[in-house]
Order: sequence, then structure tokens, then C-alpha cells
Amino acid sequence: MVVGAGFGGLAAARGLRSTGIALTVIDRRNFHLFQPLLYQVATAGLNPADIAWPVRSILRNQRNATVLLGEVVEVDASSSVVRLQDNREIPFDWLILATGATHNYFGHDEWERIAPSLKTVEDATLIRRRVLEAFERAENRLTTDHDDDKTRQLMTFVIIGGGPTGVELAGAIAELAKKALTADFRNIDPRSARILLIEGSPSVLGQFSPSLSAFARRSLEKMGVEVQVDTHVTHCTEDCVTCGDLHIPAANIFWAAGVKASPAARWLNIAADPSGRVKVKDDFSVDGHPNIFVIGDSAAYVQDGKPIPGIAPAAKQAGAYVATHIASDVAGKALPKPFRFRNYGSLATIGRNAAVMDLGPLRLKGRLAWWLWGITHIFFLIGNRNRLLVAMQWFYNYLTFGRGARLIVGPDRPSARH
Amino acid sequence: MVVGAGFGGLAAARGLRSTGIALTVIDRRNFHLFQPLLYQVATAGLNPADIAWPVRSILRNQRNATVLLGEVVEVDASSSVVRLQDNREIPFDWLILATGATHNYFGHDEWERIAPSLKTVEDATLIRRRVLEAFERAENRLTTDHDDDKTRQLMTFVIIGGGPTGVELAGAIAELAKKALTADFRNIDPRSARILLIEGSPSVLGQFSPSLSAFARRSLEKMGVEVQVDTHVTHCTEDCVTCGDLHIPAANIFWAAGVKASPAARWLNIAADPSGRVKVKDDFSVDGHPNIFVIGDSAAYVQDGKPIPGIAPAAKQAGAYVATHIASDVAGKALPKPFRFRNYGSLATIGRNAAVMDLGPLRLKGRLAWWLWGITHIFFLIGNRNRLLVAMQWFYNYLTFGRGARLIVGPDRPSARH
Repeated sequence: MVVGAGFGGLAAARGLRSTGIALTVIDRRNFHLFQPLLYQVATAGLNPADIAWPVRSILRNQRNATVLLGEVVEVDASSSVVRLQDNREIPFDWLILATGATHNYFGHDEWERIAPSLKTVEDATLIRRRVLEAFERAENRLTTDHDDDKTRQLMTFVIIGGGPTGVELAGAIAELAKKALTADFRNIDPRSARILLIEGSPSVLGQFSPSLSAFARRSLEKMGVEVQVDTHVTHCTEDCVTCGDLHIPAANIFWAAGVKASPAARWLNIAADPSGRVKVKDDFSVDGHPNIFVIGDSAAYVQDGKPIPGIAPAAKQAGAYVATHIASDVAGKALPKPFRFRNYGSLATIGRNAAVMDLGPLRLKGRLAWWLWGITHIFFLIGNRNRLLVAMQWFYNYLTFGRGARLIVGPDRPSARH
Repeated sequence: MVVGAGFGGLAAARGLRSTGIALTVIDRRNFHLFQPLLYQVATAGLNPADIAWPVRSILRNQRNATVLLGEVVEVDASSSVVRLQDNREIPFDWLILATGATHNYFGHDEWERIAPSLKTVEDATLIRRRVLEAFERAENRLTTDHDDDKTRQLMTFVIIGGGPTGVELAGAIAELAKKALTADFRNIDPRSARILLIEGSPSVLGQFSPSLSAFARRSLEKMGVEVQVDTHVTHCTEDCVTCGDLHIPAANIFWAAGVKASPAARWLNIAADPSGRVKVKDDFSVDGHPNIFVIGDSAAYVQDGKPIPGIAPAAKQAGAYVATHIASDVAGKALPKPFRFRNYGSLATIGRNAAVMDLGPLRLKGRLAWWLWGITHIFFLIGNRNRLLVAMQWFYNYLTFGRGARLIVGPDRPSARH
């Protein structure tokens, strides 16, 4: 049984394809989401369905796989059963938990309502709504009064967290404000929007080499994003971000500062690291349960003294490894050697013609990295339909500087589903 | 001032383009919605953004037009002011109300929660969610018990109302169940879904000629839709539709049985017809207010003894006419002759290779009508981006029988915005 149809869970399911082992894939959503492009949904560049694909369709032709839409709430490791929200109990022989991570407000969960994060499709449409409505409200205000402070506050966007998601979101909001929307308003000038990226450590994209991380910062600043490093948020309200003595009046605050693992550790009642990730053995199994594995963002797999990163390639490699492990065990063959994560490199995009690519010895930045970033992301999407649709919309956005998915829809509150 | 950025309101705004008359376009949504294709969003064939376009972008280059996001709640005709929900008052010299229509439950508003209609993007994603979840729930049920009656109820879809929307929705749900989903489930066979279309009058697509209407019925039946004509719904509950003595156990009920006009008549405190449409004069102005016009689905414009139909071409023609009327009046030129609606024909689609086209002397049905339907709808979309995206997805859906936008998202309740 695989719980979670993200990158890790799907890789595990596919790895078991030719084994004939009957397999149940459980997810609480009916679709696999390509999270690396979620920020483009949040900034009106893409549609949700362009980066999502029904899990049933993905596994349609894998006859040993059954897909179940349901939310796991408990794992009974001793009797080998998972319990779903609707109280159904589903027994397993082998269990792979690939339940991912959610955002981490580091003890300030009350900030979630004020500063939404970007993890689900609903989060993305909520952020899109907030960004687009900010400009509408500023435009509306100026028809009746000319309180410039209030207008500036409405047009200030603060992104907290300078990792890839924060950088991508800040860059995309800057492009939206300074390119896509410019001709659409009569009272305000969207180019005057203030976009701040706040990072606690000394540099943005800290996991990249210093030269690439400096390039990312310069690129952001060139796009009009103010970058504040070494800055910790101490308080958030609906119209202000406070960092120690610094008060930033801002009506739009988005959170990209950290993740915490899904409750897999709690379900298994075993030790977790401070981010809530399950400490796993060198085959991803958990202590005392050789038939239960935890992979992806929910797991802390320590290699060379530090946990492997919480990125899609690591989850995919882990899923494939565990599938081989289980298949070998079932077939009575020799088990594979302990897992080793192979890091093929890191990629992040900042904006038009600006990306960074850290392939170890090879470091790329700028236009070439940006094109390679686009090509690899299209390649990794699932299904030719989505590849074609994303490629076409990017091409359109590139040529026109426009953003086509500028819809304000749905209720203005973070989704109940995370 | 134009209230409403649907087909009528946009046509009026564009008609005033070269006049230099300063113009405000008010809509409560930030986008124009191409409603004729909304049923394809509800059945996972298209994305919301494919059939919507920001009003600001549409009017970006029309420098005499200002777009205001806001909801009109009152019109003070005597002092020439409209009031918005946030209490702002906006004065006008000329007013064009093009506020459309909403669904009509004919006194049974309590059915709205049970049987949603298809008017907004939120309605469409709600219906999509209900349709997709029905299959998921049926699949889930069969893993635990084999109560066939309950499963059949979950897989029964009742569409109430056999006009174009009802026919299109029934046909598209049939295609989804009987083609797109077939290989995706393990316990249920989506092809066994029961789809019923209920119509009160003696025929579906009653506004078409009898031969086309009979063709539509045969096509639906060939696709596996049961068509019940001369049948009136007397009661709806969450799991049953009652039509007199007939009880249809069904967990999925959708409403396409009628529309009622927006509250324009109430705002103006003047006479309305039974559907709530404002009785307008032969230039669309209202009695006693030669500077206030009502067009589109909100107006009852009587021509040759009966109201012109509530369809997009009628609204567009009315918008263009009123723009000319106002421009002539402002310029001191002769006013145009009374409006006459030119009916270029009616079009409706039933499913793959099946559509009907009633062009008066020329009547088409089947494959040719279907292709013409597709081509005209792509032509009438706004923006080449949307044309290209819709064409591509249709081509993909046609080749693969697949439906790409199968996402279950958002809260399960009708939107508060109508």
C-alpha cells in the first residue's frame, strides 16, 4: 500500500508495476500535483489543471494498482492496518508512507490566515485572488479618496522566506505587477507596487553556491524586488509585517519560510526530527517495522551526516528504491544495497531569462539556465496534454508579457485541506 | 456607465469606443465569462481561465473606458446615481444595465443546495466536483459493501431542463462516464452510470425545429442518456428526484430548467415580466428615464409580439444598438431607428459529432453542425490565447476521448456570488 500520490508515492507505485504485487494507492486528492510550478498558478501564468493529473489516469494501465480517494488518519503498525477518515480500515502487508509536508509557521499558526502558504491548488487560487484583488482595491480606493499611505499598503507584497518558492513567487509577482498589468488600470500604476522578499539567513537560495545565490539576489533587485536578508519576522498582522524594529505596512503577506512533515511520525508513534520528519533506516524502513517505509518530505534520511533534501528528485529516487526493495524481498532475491541519493543538481527560476542551475562542477545562470529550467520542467510534467498546454502558455506569456489566468474566484480563506 | 461586462455590456462599451464619451464599466467579477462553454468546465473538458478573460484586459486599449470591480445594489434613477455594495455612490449621465440573469427555481429556492445550476465559474467547478466525486464514492463503497442500490444511486445523474444547457450537460456527462473514465476504476464500471434528462415540455431543445429537436433526442439516447419529456419535477431531495408518481433515486441532480433576470427591475422600481425582465421601449430605454437602458437577459424587448431570446447574439446586438443611440444623442445627430433583432440562427451541441444548427431555411445536424459549432465558438472567444488553448484541448479530447481538467477542488457548496 502506498499512501500519497506525490512524486515519491507515484515513483514507488510505478516501480512495482511489473511485480504483479497487488497495490493500493491512497490519496486524499484525486490528482497528482506538480508542485514546482504551483507558484505560476498563484501568479496567473498557468491553470490548476495544467499542472495536475488524475491519479487514476496515471495508473490506469497499471492493472495491479487500485486507487482509493481517502484521507489516512491513523496507522496501526502492530496489526498492519491504516484507518481512513470515514473509519474504513484497510489492511496492508507492506506500507509506503509518502505523505509529504505542509507549511511550517514555527509556532505561529495564527499567521496562517494572514500570510497563506503555497502547498495546494486552493492555496494557489487564494494567493492569486489576493494578489489580483490588491490591485483592484487600490484602483477602487483612488476613485474616492487619495490616501496614499493606504494605497501604498494595498500595493505592498511581502514574501517571507527566500528559498526557491519565495524567490519564484517574488519574481513572478514582480513580473505580474511590472509587466502584465501595466496598461490595465487607470488610477494606479501597477509598476509602483512594492515587493519585498524577507529571508532570515544571510542569502536567498542559500542551498546554491554563493555566486548563484548572489546572482539571484541581483536579478530580483533588477526586477524591482527589495531583498532583506538576515531579517526575522517577529509579528504579522493583516496590514503590517514586523521584523524587530522594522515595520512594513503591507496588505499582502505570503509565507514561504519553511515546511513541516506530515504526521507520519505521530501515526507510527516513533521519533521525528525537529521538522517532524520520521527518522528512517538506510532502506527507508522505520525502526521495528521492516514492512513500513517512509519516503519523500516526510522522511529524514541521513546521508553523509545530513538529511537528503526535500525535493522531487530525492522523493522519486526513494520511491523507486523502496519498490525495488519490496519486490526483491517478495521474490526472495537479495535486497538492494542501502539507498544513496544522487544529486543531479538544483534549479530555481527568478523570472524572465533569469534562473540558476547548480550542477556541482557546472554552474549556469541567466538566460541559458532559464531555458533549461523551462525545458526540464516541461519534460517532467505528466502527460503530453499538460506538456503542450504549459509550453504554449509559456510561449504566449513570453511573447506578450501577459498572464492569461487572471481570475478572481472562490472564497477568500485558506483551504481546509492541506 | 455600463453595469455588467457580459456579452451585452461589452458590446455597448466597445460601441462607444470612438465616441470619446468617458465610460465606466462596473462588474462584480474581474472577468468576462464565455457562458456558452461553461458546461465544458463543469464536465472537465476545459479550464475556467480558458473561457474567461479579465475585463480590464479587454478594455485595456480603450482609453475612454474605466473598469470598476464592484457590485451594484441600488440605482437611484431620479438623482442619476448607482450605489455599490461598499456604499460608494457613482453618478452617471447615461446608464446601461446589462446585468444578465440567474437561475430560476420557480419558488423552490431550497432546491438550489441540492441541485446546483450552471451560471458562474464556481458553479461549474462545484458541478465538476460533484460529478467526479460521485464516481469516487461509488468506487469506495464497493470496496466495503455491495449495496447495489446505493451504488446505482451514486452513479445516477439527473439533469432537470432540456434546453441547450441541459442537453449539453447531459451529453457531456454521458461522454465523461462512458468514454473518458472507463479504464480508470477497478470496482465500478463508469459506463453503467445512469444519466437522465428531464424536460417539462414535449421536446428537448424546444426552440429548434421539430426535426432537429427529434435528432437531439435520438442522439442523446444513442449516447445512453434517458430522456423524459412532459415530465415535471415536483420534489427534490439529496438522493431522490420526484416527478409526480415517478421516484428517481439519484445522488447527483443538476438544474438547467430556467432563468430569472437580475434585479434591474427592482432597482428601477418599474414593471417586469414574470421572469423578472424589465419591459423596455423600442430603444431599450425604460419608461420615464430616457437615459437609462436595460439590455440582454435582464430586458424583455418585445418584437413581433414576443420577447427576443435571451442569447448572446441578442445581447450583443442590443449593446451595439444602445451605444449608437447614445453616441447619436450626445453628438446631436438623428437617433437610429427602433432596434430589430436579427436572428442568424441557433446552435446547440449534444456530444461528439452531434450538434444541431437552425439557420431558418438551412438546418444542419450531426457531424457538420458539430464542427461548425466548434469553429464558431472558437471564433467568438475573446483573445487568441483562449482560442488556441480551447482548440488544442478540444483536439486532444477528440483524439483521446480524454478529459484533462478532472480536478476535485474547492468547497462543496454553491458559491455566494451569483
